[in-house]
Amino acid sequence: MIRKLRMGMIGGGTGSFIGDVHRRAAAIDGMIELVCGAFSSNEEKSKTSGKALYLPEDRCYGSFEEMILKEKELPEGVRMDFVSIVTPNHMHFPPAKLAIENGFNVVCDKPMTLTLDEAIALETIIEKSGKLFALTHNYTGGHPMVKQARAMVAKGDLGKIRKIQVQYLQGWLSTAVEQTGQKQASWRVDPSKSGIGGALGDIGTHAENLAEYITGLKIEELAADLGKFGEGRVLDDDGNLLLRMENGAKGTMSISQIALGEENNLAIKVYGEKGSLEWHQENPNQLITHWLEEPVKIFTPNGNNLYEEALNVSRIPAGHPEGYLEAFATIYKNFATHLMAVLNGETIDKPDYPTVKDGIRGMQFIYAAVESDKKNSAWTKIE
Amino acid sequence: MIRKLRMGMIGGGTGSFIGDVHRRAAAIDGMIELVCGAFSSNEEKSKTSGKALYLPEDRCYGSFEEMILKEKELPEGVRMDFVSIVTPNHMHFPPAKLAIENGFNVVCDKPMTLTLDEAIALETIIEKSGKLFALTHNYTGGHPMVKQARAMVAKGDLGKIRKIQVQYLQGWLSTAVEQTGQKQASWRVDPSKSGIGGALGDIGTHAENLAEYITGLKIEELAADLGKFGEGRVLDDDGNLLLRMENGAKGTMSISQIALGEENNLAIKVYGEKGSLEWHQENPNQLITHWLEEPVKIFTPNGNNLYEEALNVSRIPAGHPEGYLEAFATIYKNFATHLMAVLNGETIDKPDYPTVKDGIRGMQFIYAAVESDKKNSAWTKIE
Amino acid sequence: MIRKLRMGMIGGGTGSFIGDVHRRAAAIDGMIELVCGAFSSNEEKSKTSGKALYLPEDRCYGSFEEMILKEKELPEGVRMDFVSIVTPNHMHFPPAKLAIENGFNVVCDKPMTLTLDEAIALETIIEKSGKLFALTHNYTGGHPMVKQARAMVAKGDLGKIRKIQVQYLQGWLSTAVEQTGQKQASWRVDPSKSGIGGALGDIGTHAENLAEYITGLKIEELAADLGKFGEGRVLDDDGNLLLRMENGAKGTMSISQIALGEENNLAIKVYGEKGSLEWHQENPNQLITHWLEEPVKIFTPNGNNLYEEALNVSRIPAGHPEGYLEAFATIYKNFATHLMAVLNGETIDKPDYPTVKDGIRGMQFIYAAVESDKKNSAWTKIE
Amino acid sequence: MIRKLRMGMIGGGTGSFIGDVHRRAAAIDGMIELVCGAFSSNEEKSKTSGKALYLPEDRCYGSFEEMILKEKELPEGVRMDFVSIVTPNHMHFPPAKLAIENGFNVVCDKPMTLTLDEAIALETIIEKSGKLFALTHNYTGGHPMVKQARAMVAKGDLGKIRKIQVQYLQGWLSTAVEQTGQKQASWRVDPSKSGIGGALGDIGTHAENLAEYITGLKIEELAADLGKFGEGRVLDDDGNLLLRMENGAKGTMSISQIALGEENNLAIKVYGEKGSLEWHQENPNQLITHWLEEPVKIFTPNGNNLYEEALNVSRIPAGHPEGYLEAFATIYKNFATHLMAVLNGETIDKPDYPTVKDGIRGMQFIYAAVESDKKNSAWTKIE
Repeated sequence: MIRKLRMGMIGGGTGSFIGDVHRRAAAIDGMIELVCGAFSSNEEKSKTSGKALYLPEDRCYGSFEEMILKEKELPEGVRMDFVSIVTPNHMHFPPAKLAIENGFNVVCDKPMTLTLDEAIALETIIEKSGKLFALTHNYTGGHPMVKQARAMVAKGDLGKIRKIQVQYLQGWLSTAVEQTGQKQASWRVDPSKSGIGGALGDIGTHAENLAEYITGLKIEELAADLGKFGEGRVLDDDGNLLLRMENGAKGTMSISQIALGEENNLAIKVYGEKGSLEWHQENPNQLITHWLEEPVKIFTPNGNNLYEEALNVSRIPAGHPEGYLEAFATIYKNFATHLMAVLNGETIDKPDYPTVKDGIRGMQFIYAAVESDKKNSAWTKIE
Repeated sequence: MIRKLRMGMIGGGTGSFIGDVHRRAAAIDGMIELVCGAFSSNEEKSKTSGKALYLPEDRCYGSFEEMILKEKELPEGVRMDFVSIVTPNHMHFPPAKLAIENGFNVVCDKPMTLTLDEAIALETIIEKSGKLFALTHNYTGGHPMVKQARAMVAKGDLGKIRKIQVQYLQGWLSTAVEQTGQKQASWRVDPSKSGIGGALGDIGTHAENLAEYITGLKIEELAADLGKFGEGRVLDDDGNLLLRMENGAKGTMSISQIALGEENNLAIKVYGEKGSLEWHQENPNQLITHWLEEPVKIFTPNGNNLYEEALNVSRIPAGHPEGYLEAFATIYKNFATHLMAVLNGETIDKPDYPTVKDGIRGMQFIYAAVESDKKNSAWTKIE
Repeated sequence: MIRKLRMGMIGGGTGSFIGDVHRRAAAIDGMIELVCGAFSSNEEKSKTSGKALYLPEDRCYGSFEEMILKEKELPEGVRMDFVSIVTPNHMHFPPAKLAIENGFNVVCDKPMTLTLDEAIALETIIEKSGKLFALTHNYTGGHPMVKQARAMVAKGDLGKIRKIQVQYLQGWLSTAVEQTGQKQASWRVDPSKSGIGGALGDIGTHAENLAEYITGLKIEELAADLGKFGEGRVLDDDGNLLLRMENGAKGTMSISQIALGEENNLAIKVYGEKGSLEWHQENPNQLITHWLEEPVKIFTPNGNNLYEEALNVSRIPAGHPEGYLEAFATIYKNFATHLMAVLNGETIDKPDYPTVKDGIRGMQFIYAAVESDKKNSAWTKIE
Repeated sequence: MIRKLRMGMIGGGTGSFIGDVHRRAAAIDGMIELVCGAFSSNEEKSKTSGKALYLPEDRCYGSFEEMILKEKELPEGVRMDFVSIVTPNHMHFPPAKLAIENGFNVVCDKPMTLTLDEAIALETIIEKSGKLFALTHNYTGGHPMVKQARAMVAKGDLGKIRKIQVQYLQGWLSTAVEQTGQKQASWRVDPSKSGIGGALGDIGTHAENLAEYITGLKIEELAADLGKFGEGRVLDDDGNLLLRMENGAKGTMSISQIALGEENNLAIKVYGEKGSLEWHQENPNQLITHWLEEPVKIFTPNGNNLYEEALNVSRIPAGHPEGYLEAFATIYKNFATHLMAVLNGETIDKPDYPTVKDGIRGMQFIYAAVESDKKNSAWTKIE
């Protein structure tokens, strides 16, 4: 197949933060072109958004249903190959389901669905269809130093893991910005659009995903104390959690959107019997490690002594910072590589991007945390 | 009174880590001289230790009882003015009690006693005696940036406090070093010498003290999940805790002596409605603050815009790092200043050093954490 | 004009570092599409490279001359709108000249030309043509915190500038990698391809450009001590320079490609009478500032209290690191915005990207440094 | 000898910064007691200062001459063993000379003398006398990580040294504080008290000493561009220098007391053929190293893999920051250890503290830099 993959976008109209992120991430590696979109449920707005993206008017649709059904009728090589879903949480499942059932592959933002039931249903739909599905857990999907961390644990460099600290701290909901009409805030504090978790879904799932991805261990149970500090909030905007991992390791998770001054402070520390490691999203090009009998060692993308898993996802020489977009792009790149192979009738070894299973895990995490909090922080299994 | 104060030391013989620290801390400001000691319960060892400190042999005693009773007989200006107790935990209460009951003032290492009962008893003894008692919570007693942090919260700069993260992480007990005869480790893992808390008493009390000192808020209740990771350990060497503060703020505490690679990583973050702050013991000469509508601001000792509380405890110009010893020394300095005033029949405004009340609070914290852990991390009041 | 701009690339075949960078940078903002290329002077290699980029074979040319002359014959809207030149230094001037003289706009990598004479000639050619020309000084062209720094100086926040420290340190030429056939190294150490400057041209021009861009001051004269440490090198791989700025400020510049362990350490400090600032390319999302009577303040992209100049070039919310590619992309974005306006017959206010004047400045800097070094570091004017 | 050494101080009256530093540094290790002083040339002030230090009135003298001559008459064990000279530069040589000629050992602040001639004369006096002389180059005398750095270079870990960056930046003279009566500033900007160098003597000598100490290489020649930015200054308050080391390595030195916002930013980077290292005085408990084929390694005091040279001068466990005073104290400790040995008729292997030779080197550096600056930055030998 000697052409770029063709992407249709659902959501992400003018002014959307995450829509722009997905478009840029999809564009970086030159394997994907945007060919159509249902950027808004208002047809005019959708067309205006599409025009600003240099799309022809007849490929800008007023609903995801229209887009999916009309694109289906176009010839291969013209119609979109996959959809990218970048809407609020409650609008993930319906388009994902419809797209898959009509033969399209899907890239979807996280958390995967509004409810756990939807998540489980989606898995069945995907499995039946044979279509590809990627979940944009961008922090685990792309950062070279996260890949290096996971590889180090998997190869036993750190020995048995004993302790974990993971946090995702933001401060942008410190004041009740949703009352000022801030669109990003409004839907996130609204259970009908966000689900039963507030910060839990928006950023807690990233923390959960990062912890399980790097350690290769499942969180077996958790004890959660959620806070609703913003005036009038009904969903959590803060959470403190104790963790017990399946291998006996223990840990804490701290998440917040009212941690004033924090920008996007996702970070993790993992302590093993032989070594430990530390990674910070805001300074993502360092992996700090400690050892029983050696000095502190710091690894950098394309630096010395990296595992192949990290080298595979570095684009540029050491010292040229890769950031948020590049990591995001790696999911699109790896998804596109997989999809091209499938379209060419080939198979690839170990496709490397988050899937529906990560999405279910995230929803289970949200549900367990909410349940634990209701029971005054009683230990609750994630299942 | 135109002379230095005269100190007698209990414990701290040759090879002791904390004995040397106390001696250096007491010496730095030139207000105190070491005149005698019961450095060991072995008289010969005590005399050998004293000789290395240039003490006359007849002021080196074979027991704290002997020292206290013999010194009492010496004339004022010759005899010691106060004792400094630097023994393992189980040997704090007996000498403190005897010293006070024989008219001596006391500086004592933390945690204050072996048991909570002893702590409460000690408070009564001290109150009855009118003698001075300082507890060496060195991290809150002396760092300029900790004083600045407390002052900022007290003056309302941060607004109402909502969230706290405090941690004290070490890795030196990652392996079972107590089995190699390492003396510092041996008594710390032994309940008969350490009490019911392991890491809880040794470093958890520092974390508790720091959180309450800076925020001016009491921890109302906690939920603790303690770990005993080192082979054969009966006391906790790791702990993860949820915190609820008296004003409704929530938080986490993470403590560990098996966090491999961590050296002495005591750190705190405090988030309020108007601002937040962050302090790290390993880089103590920075106070990082965040604000709703201003850029990040970093304060340094003797730098710009400090409160008097911080300026009071800086010794040298900005940029000349003051560290662990200097902070420790400030407790001795402030205690000595108070004691000199008392000896001169004067009073001073707000003596500034940790007292028996901090010691009781620490013991209550240990007891609450152990109880919560036994109840599978049930919320437990600190009282 | 409701279409993307159409780019033709000269150089940047498979395996090229900087070709990939330019393609990604051009793609990020969705305003530019790659439509053709002369990726190699070997026609077959060029076509193979183009195929991997999903280009049709007949738009992959065997020479830049062929590309320019054939594309010229294509209809508007099909033919390329501009060329992007990403070849080694000696192949900048010939294609730039030919492209401009045939009516194409140009984006060109730096240093602008092989010789100073070429640089001066190019300016005349551009001025006569009325075509747009952008030089990819990516560090000054795109980083929000560099824009903020420049704006702070320009508005007088720092007062009169007194002192500058600028450095660009790399270590990748510590060993004679050019002797191992490393392609990136080979041409850079070869005067026939690189010009009279080695590290001077490759990274020194970035340092010079950054210093002059942020301070708004020209370097009036310099004293240079160049080193040729790598075995067999005839061009400088290291340089230490004294600087005197046009306003009387003084400073140092240190550049190196044999500073073992350094990855891409471009950094600057600027000290004024009222404030100072500090920026590090490897951690680009911080601008550290100091003030006479205020604490240290740190600015971040999309953080508090930024000038419009910085806000204009931030793509994503605070805390989501933007790196090397995003900054690079901003040059393409601003160039594309300008070119679209021109093609639409519009004008724009202050196009914001480096131009031929920056290119001439860079060549003058190289020539002055080489001359000073020959005269045993005598002070030499940049002119 | 079973007693502490007895110190007499010259200078350092109440309000002196450096006097307090020396007293604290001398006290920390419990080997030295202050027994007398000529704290001021005003007898009354001297006595008042001494009283605040708990000294008897008859040991507080009105001049250094009086002190030296009267103490000489006291019996051994009562009289001072050595003097500590903490006066401004012009008052170093006279008391040092008199003390040595009357049989006293000397600790002296830096720069060693007012003029180079005095420095050379002092060396002869010391050599003739056989007395001990320590110069308080505190940064090289005591920091564990500086000792580690020197040892790594000496053992060849870094290979042949190629490049050096050293800087000592302060901002406290950014405004003309000497005009406000600030005592520390007044004498430093006055050539009759400071000598021919301003910042050169006060901090440049530290930078020179650090560079030569760590690399084990002499600076062969330098090219200096000095600035006098503060209103009315006649001595340099800023300097930018090129360096050539005796082995062919090249480098830069940047010093300043008008680098607004800088507190005490002494730092060095050393690049070799096999490795490189980096140390920052403001964060002194880290030594950052880079290697050809290994990740970045960070060493810490009492951390893993240190050489004996570093372990010897660490007082407390890893992670308990040691700072400015502790490093200063190490000079006193090592001097005291040497002096005790001498008094006991013993010899010790390699006494480890800066000596008169370092002092001469510092004066030569000042003179070479001033000469080079006068010749418009011509290369000038240090000799």
